[in-house]
Amino acid sequence: MDAEIIAVGSELLTPERLDTNSLWLTAQLNALGIEVVTKMVIGDDRERLAQAVRTVLARSPLLLVTGGLGPTEDDVTREAVAEALGRELVFHPEILAAIEERFRRAGRVMAEINRRQAFLIEGAEALPNPVGTAPGQWIRLDDRAVVLLPGPPGELKPMFTDHVLPRLRAIAPPLVIRTRTYRVAGIAESDLDQRISPVYKRYANLSTTVLAAPGDIQVHLRARCQDEREAEALLQEVGHQIEAILGDRIYSPGEPLEVLVGNLLRQRRATLAVAESCTGGLLAERITSVPGSSDYFLGGFLVYSNQAKRDLAGVPASLLEEHGPVSEPVARALAEGTRARTGASYALAVTGIAGPGGGTEATPVGTAYLAVAGPEGTSARRFRFLGDRERVRAFAAQTALDMLRRRILGLPEIPGLAPS
Amino acid sequence: MDAEIIAVGSELLTPERLDTNSLWLTAQLNALGIEVVTKMVIGDDRERLAQAVRTVLARSPLLLVTGGLGPTEDDVTREAVAEALGRELVFHPEILAAIEERFRRAGRVMAEINRRQAFLIEGAEALPNPVGTAPGQWIRLDDRAVVLLPGPPGELKPMFTDHVLPRLRAIAPPLVIRTRTYRVAGIAESDLDQRISPVYKRYANLSTTVLAAPGDIQVHLRARCQDEREAEALLQEVGHQIEAILGDRIYSPGEPLEVLVGNLLRQRRATLAVAESCTGGLLAERITSVPGSSDYFLGGFLVYSNQAKRDLAGVPASLLEEHGPVSEPVARALAEGTRARTGASYALAVTGIAGPGGGTEATPVGTAYLAVAGPEGTSARRFRFLGDRERVRAFAAQTALDMLRRRILGLPEIPGLAPS
Repeated sequence: MDAEIIAVGSELLTPERLDTNSLWLTAQLNALGIEVVTKMVIGDDRERLAQAVRTVLARSPLLLVTGGLGPTEDDVTREAVAEALGRELVFHPEILAAIEERFRRAGRVMAEINRRQAFLIEGAEALPNPVGTAPGQWIRLDDRAVVLLPGPPGELKPMFTDHVLPRLRAIAPPLVIRTRTYRVAGIAESDLDQRISPVYKRYANLSTTVLAAPGDIQVHLRARCQDEREAEALLQEVGHQIEAILGDRIYSPGEPLEVLVGNLLRQRRATLAVAESCTGGLLAERITSVPGSSDYFLGGFLVYSNQAKRDLAGVPASLLEEHGPVSEPVARALAEGTRARTGASYALAVTGIAGPGGGTEATPVGTAYLAVAGPEGTSARRFRFLGDRERVRAFAAQTALDMLRRRILGLPEIPGLAPS
Repeated sequence: MDAEIIAVGSELLTPERLDTNSLWLTAQLNALGIEVVTKMVIGDDRERLAQAVRTVLARSPLLLVTGGLGPTEDDVTREAVAEALGRELVFHPEILAAIEERFRRAGRVMAEINRRQAFLIEGAEALPNPVGTAPGQWIRLDDRAVVLLPGPPGELKPMFTDHVLPRLRAIAPPLVIRTRTYRVAGIAESDLDQRISPVYKRYANLSTTVLAAPGDIQVHLRARCQDEREAEALLQEVGHQIEAILGDRIYSPGEPLEVLVGNLLRQRRATLAVAESCTGGLLAERITSVPGSSDYFLGGFLVYSNQAKRDLAGVPASLLEEHGPVSEPVARALAEGTRARTGASYALAVTGIAGPGGGTEATPVGTAYLAVAGPEGTSARRFRFLGDRERVRAFAAQTALDMLRRRILGLPEIPGLAPS
């Protein structure tokens, strides 16, 4: 089954913005055996959008339209699709009531323009939006379907998963797709691919995608087969080989490292604190992005200045003077001081130079010392991360979490660079 | 003048890849006063591509096609565009000679399939490609033009700059585009749009885009006029009215709030510290995402647990017991304790319930108390933010930064909800 995606929004036609929803949607559709054959971006222009909808529906059985469902005048998706289908927009008082209730709960009064969001195309089913005000819409036309989804990814994704996926499953021709994911830390993307590509390239009905974020690689295996047993057997066969190659660099079958580490801590009734210099809150932000992280995360110190390293985390002034703030002794002292002052089972510390300024020949931009202190003692390592400020910070936070994972599980430490 | 861009390549329809050439091309075209009105991504499918080319040429005077000019069978752009235009492909021996020469200089023999790249559409001008083998093509049709460009950015960009830009300058009607941006905090998107849309809708040659992130709205005005003076006058006229309506909710003409607040602090030689409970590092992460933030950011406390609020930031145990951790007195004590312990000029504190768990009837999910302590004293406010965990945290961090901006500039405080 073929699908087309239209992203609506004049901002997506500027030099600054891309439609990224279509990537996520494509992955979801592919998993059902649905191929995306064309993507379009159209501005907030009712006529143009209506024309595009007509063109797509003349050739493809499934159209997804994202964006343009907001309350303002330039949100034209409802009107344009109704026009293309030759249908009316129908006011739904129950949707309006839900939107009003949402505002009331927040102690606010709904603006009059939000009424626009209570209109559905004739014959459409409303797709509930627990996160925002705009409901989605599902419209079935003989053997075709049109789906309207809100633009913000935080609204689009749960709506698609909860309400569109089940409907598509019911209409997409049966092809069994089974997937397996490995999340991997402590290896570069090119290195990983060089090692595992000789394995996955041997299989025709397997597609493999390697997605890399700083310090964090996802290997997605996708088997498309006639039946479930065949698909599972294929994943088993390939997965076995990949696991043998990557070993303990594989940290989870899907969940991010902050979730995995959180679960390890919770299982052991252990607690965690952090001291962050160059990551400036990023490490704690990732840890606390996990609901329920208060079960194990106590808090810690943001030690951006030398004074904070000394006064807050208790790093001896002499260490700072002798070795400088970006050094192994200071990383150790940060971790140990944080552990002592918070009473946490484990403490992670990061001190480094995220750039673009501040590097020296001995300690270039991208240098970071990471330390973990725990009941078994303290270990620290020097790393050199490549890339801009954002990448260096992301690498440092990810690698710190991986050091903690290895410590808790009793795995060998990640090789860092020897201290200079 | 309107333009459309078609990116060709099946790899651009996978979940991993985006067409980014169109961003650069859009910036180039906009600078000439040419608007991009639709973007499309089409796979290596000759029929589909030919159909899309026909559709575009029926409605727009300029079409740019990127990619699909390589030597292999799945490079279908030449054939598809020729078919759409009803023209033949013509072999050019001088182009073949140039390609062969290129291979010879590299000490290699040209593969036979590269002959395909020596074909131009009847009537096309070849656009030289000093970086790769595929020439581009420029085809003039009465009052329309079609441009074929290679997909690799390193080939596309110099070819566009050297050979397409001068040709477009000769045919594009002289039109000047000038833009103005307002970044706005402390107002909901729907509320903002309801207030300013009566203004911007009155102007035909102005396009307005409203982009909303949690607590952070960008209003982009774009004036398309005959000359620069007219464009600037239009922006001035509309901008004046929008500024009068939004007042001190406008915080900057483009830079994000963490950059603006950083500059305000730096100008005043003031320093900042934070104490974060529900935002868990997000506020500090945003502040320290700005290069050079060590000029004013000292650090602070991650106070996820009650114990951390007490031991690290010095919140009296009696306050925590009496009012609970998510309360105005605790927010104040966090800000004041952090300011005292770090010696910073200003301290921001956030304590709240990001959810999904932890809410009560009196303190539902999304409730946050934000406080700012400074030389002028301490103020705290209760807010109720809507959305999931990520949104609540993003709203809280943004609103805390806005409280600090207002404090430093001596502006009235943002109205929060009255403490219950």
